Amino acid sequence: MTARIIDGKAVAARVRAEVARDVAALDRVPGLATLLVGDDPASAIYVRNKRRLCVEAGMADLHRHLPGDVSQAELAAVIDELAADPDVTGILLQLPLPGHLDAAPLIARIPADKDVDGLTEVSAGRLALGRPGLRPCTPSGVMVLLDEAGVDLAGAEAVVVGRSDLVGKPQGALLLARNATVTTCHSRTRDLAAVCRRADVLVVAAGRPGLIGADAVKPGAVVIDVGIHRGEHGLVGDVRTAEVAEVAGAITPVPGGVGPMTIAMLLRNTVTAAKGL
Amino acid sequence: MTARIIDGKAVAARVRAEVARDVAALDRVPGLATLLVGDDPASAIYVRNKRRLCVEAGMADLHRHLPGDVSQAELAAVIDELAADPDVTGILLQLPLPGHLDAAPLIARIPADKDVDGLTEVSAGRLALGRPGLRPCTPSGVMVLLDEAGVDLAGAEAVVVGRSDLVGKPQGALLLARNATVTTCHSRTRDLAAVCRRADVLVVAAGRPGLIGADAVKPGAVVIDVGIHRGEHGLVGDVRTAEVAEVAGAITPVPGGVGPMTIAMLLRNTVTAAKGL
Repeated sequence: MTARIIDGKAVAARVRAEVARDVAALDRVPGLATLLVGDDPASAIYVRNKRRLCVEAGMADLHRHLPGDVSQAELAAVIDELAADPDVTGILLQLPLPGHLDAAPLIARIPADKDVDGLTEVSAGRLALGRPGLRPCTPSGVMVLLDEAGVDLAGAEAVVVGRSDLVGKPQGALLLARNATVTTCHSRTRDLAAVCRRADVLVVAAGRPGLIGADAVKPGAVVIDVGIHRGEHGLVGDVRTAEVAEVAGAITPVPGGVGPMTIAMLLRNTVTAAKGL
Repeated sequence: MTARIIDGKAVAARVRAEVARDVAALDRVPGLATLLVGDDPASAIYVRNKRRLCVEAGMADLHRHLPGDVSQAELAAVIDELAADPDVTGILLQLPLPGHLDAAPLIARIPADKDVDGLTEVSAGRLALGRPGLRPCTPSGVMVLLDEAGVDLAGAEAVVVGRSDLVGKPQGALLLARNATVTTCHSRTRDLAAVCRRADVLVVAAGRPGLIGADAVKPGAVVIDVGIHRGEHGLVGDVRTAEVAEVAGAITPVPGGVGPMTIAMLLRNTVTAAKGL
């Protein structure tokens, strides 16, 4: 193996420590309202981790747990209450919601300045227009990893595989804002490996285990693997890490790469919201 | 010359005729409020053309002309009045504004459902997230020209030169929504000609006269020139049309290419707003 491993766990810990220092310097303790509906076990674990790290960073845990049969109107009313509450700095509606609820109009009720997940139309527009705003956590975390890896993004060829609202599309916008030449690929891209081989920076968020192999990587490229899947032998990403590590200059592992960054960036967003955008 | 010329004037006339048919079929006449501040001669001409074609398409011309020394608060109040007026389907704030006015917070007062220029944060977010919304007129017009030229966008390599909020960035989003593999280039791109040569579809919106020559065009590519500049010998675009036309499969002229599409798409947006998004 030749590639340097980008240690997301260590970087995330550093970001959380910075957040804790920022929180300590604020006049008022920021509060994060995580909103969990129903009893999905995976969602419960995610929310528990967010709450724990929120408290570790010195912020107020303003969690709300609503029953799985809550109505759309009741949930909307809770969001409106949190939106109006000056103690609530950030609102995170844990997804997915139970099937009888419609997520989009609920997310739309979160004020952009409290939208610490960066999921509202206004937050997406602020990113698209290059204005101050709260950015989606996973692609922001990728940017921090690229900076930690010492990547010079200006003028670099960046290729993003995947065009989800949560990762691919905001990732492209963030890379473009840093002056990379950005290509976005997806399932309809004709020769995916050929396009990926152009990349100085390759961010893979396709949601397909092992999609990217060594044939799709330029020697020396920095490869960020956003995928995470439960495989036969443990967790795997969208990148075939072992073979790509023979070609790439640097690579994130799965687990321990992008994954830990997401909550760290959620906490950073909450501090950003507390400071005012 | 080998390239087919894409006749934007003819396509724009067809779009306007479609808009007029749509207007005739509506129960209620849509109204377009163009808002002109001060006496900039170029802005006056643009607004006059918009009003004329709006009336030709059967819509109500709800123009407002405000003195050049209007205050920020007064202009904001006019926009709020138009926003609340059910007879006003679309609001267009003609830019640039006189120097003492701050455009961004004024644009932000335009409700996204009346934002026929597609300039608000919410409209940009809706585009980024692939949701129904009003799109910026010039890049939407480019999409119509590509369709008229019979381009199969799915899986095509599309390259956009320029990353402005008005054209380059929304253009990339629109091409991606149509399943092209999209690369966005800009002034920091290292080897612009090499990147452009990959393009099956090349959209140039760099704002630099004659930037793109034949060396940057793949044989048979479709080239759309968004630039328009007053040169020594009349209007010129960002593309050196004569030499590129020897290589490209199809090309828009300047003038008579993208230019006429912008107002046509403004009118189409107004009808879209009237129908409900």
